[in-house]
Amino acid sequence: MKLVTYRINHTPSRLGFIEGEMIIDAEKLGHIKSSPLPNTMLEFIDMGTDGINKATNLINTASKEQLQECSIPLANATLMAPIPKPRKNIFGIGLNYTEHVAESARTLDTSKDLPQQPVIFSKPPTTVTGPNTNIIHNQKITKQLDYEVELAVVLGKGGKNIPKDEAMDHVYGYTVINDISARDCRRSGQWIVSKGQDTFAPMGPVLVTRDEIADPHNLNLRLTVNGVEKQNSNTKFMLFNISDLIHDLSTVFTLEEGDIIATGTPAGVGAGRDPQEFMWPGDVVEATVEGIGTLRNTIVDSEEVQ
Amino acid sequence: MKLVTYRINHTPSRLGFIEGEMIIDAEKLGHIKSSPLPNTMLEFIDMGTDGINKATNLINTASKEQLQECSIPLANATLMAPIPKPRKNIFGIGLNYTEHVAESARTLDTSKDLPQQPVIFSKPPTTVTGPNTNIIHNQKITKQLDYEVELAVVLGKGGKNIPKDEAMDHVYGYTVINDISARDCRRSGQWIVSKGQDTFAPMGPVLVTRDEIADPHNLNLRLTVNGVEKQNSNTKFMLFNISDLIHDLSTVFTLEEGDIIATGTPAGVGAGRDPQEFMWPGDVVEATVEGIGTLRNTIVDSEEVQ
Repeated sequence: MKLVTYRINHTPSRLGFIEGEMIIDAEKLGHIKSSPLPNTMLEFIDMGTDGINKATNLINTASKEQLQECSIPLANATLMAPIPKPRKNIFGIGLNYTEHVAESARTLDTSKDLPQQPVIFSKPPTTVTGPNTNIIHNQKITKQLDYEVELAVVLGKGGKNIPKDEAMDHVYGYTVINDISARDCRRSGQWIVSKGQDTFAPMGPVLVTRDEIADPHNLNLRLTVNGVEKQNSNTKFMLFNISDLIHDLSTVFTLEEGDIIATGTPAGVGAGRDPQEFMWPGDVVEATVEGIGTLRNTIVDSEEVQ
Repeated sequence: MKLVTYRINHTPSRLGFIEGEMIIDAEKLGHIKSSPLPNTMLEFIDMGTDGINKATNLINTASKEQLQECSIPLANATLMAPIPKPRKNIFGIGLNYTEHVAESARTLDTSKDLPQQPVIFSKPPTTVTGPNTNIIHNQKITKQLDYEVELAVVLGKGGKNIPKDEAMDHVYGYTVINDISARDCRRSGQWIVSKGQDTFAPMGPVLVTRDEIADPHNLNLRLTVNGVEKQNSNTKFMLFNISDLIHDLSTVFTLEEGDIIATGTPAGVGAGRDPQEFMWPGDVVEATVEGIGTLRNTIVDSEEVQ
């Protein structure tokens, strides 16, 4: 399934399922079929595959009239981040593509050696923003606003010390995150100010459940700025694959339903270019992951959004 | 007020107010007085000073019999972390006491220069544990388990770009956090694995509301391991005081009600000693902040808690 958090005009956000050019509203579908479904993504994720099976069944057994009654055209909806308010900071993975390790070592202060263990950082829930929203550029604190297209993994099942060969069972689905980074905002080497500012985790446009992605380790990743391609790679070049990451994170932290892992970005970031290129107000950045979609955002000056 | 999250035996946790040797249960008090109060710390914090005033008023106008009916002896309760499940990662502040900057530069890889801006990191909600619980020592990944007594600030009001002279209005209250750190678990310099493991944020024993702490910048901090004093300082030696920290954090992140800031530790940590001293299973660590109380925890081997 393709799951969305959406709203119409400025009403509160709702959970929906994409069917062609329509969004089927989850709660309304449940109501019509007298079989309740929740109204938020996190509650639906908490139901696990039972939720997916139930919703699929309700859709398949609904009459055309019933489906019409609980659907709206996708074009009339505003898509939001699939998980607008994560339950904790997003787990970010740094330096997880070989070429990006090399470019980072050239221009940032990271090592040129490949990491022996995943490099982990965090992005607060307040970083999350949706598709077609603004990324805030605060010129008081950065002149190095950069992009990073990433496959994001959403966990449906938590755990501690999850074996690698069971790790994929813990995946609920996938979305796109643009791991926005203000390169000049690191403090004593820590990345949270660089990567944790408001709107620095555009997410979406949809959450695709695991069953719809045949091989998450063979997805093209692409990013453009103002239509010009800057990143183009494939998830098969991850240093630590999704099972490695879930296993490793779970040896350190107890993982939980709804946890989000941004799995790292390939080469081509602005800081790694010669000369370096950063984003400025007015720039439009589009991050695409194959099978999920394109996440489009516009850079705006922080003074414009007060 | 002194607020606690507590339970009796293994019942679900409840919100209470300390009065002498008794805990007044918040929800039961509200019920008896026909004026509802919530049952969790975060909901109570969301009420702001209105909640504190209301609860104080209910206690003051309750009869002795009414108070008896909704109270239990403190000795019969198990105190938990005041906020057992924060809404996001805790904000940690590194290198915020002069002498600790010096000792860290000697033995860790940090700079000997005083930071010009607060050094920020994060601890996931899964790090939180209560008083009198175990701190898990995972010998597979660390041989350098260290302690850090810290004053923790709980925000009652969020905001963005909070001016320094208004910052204290955003403080709800204070508690103690022992910022447990596995020094040998940094990855590419990032601290989250070092400071983010399960049970690495013992918190408590109580949350003291702001009105009860005359000067949060003049509180003694003390930490002992097996009864031997290791840290002894005062919050007046913070490099960035609480207003500085709230202001600075709010220029980067939108702050929210219930956010927790661990304000940094003074000198005396194990990694800064010659020879270095770390904690091992069986060790008992006690972290005290004047006016709040003592947080006592025992180190256990991770194999013992599977």
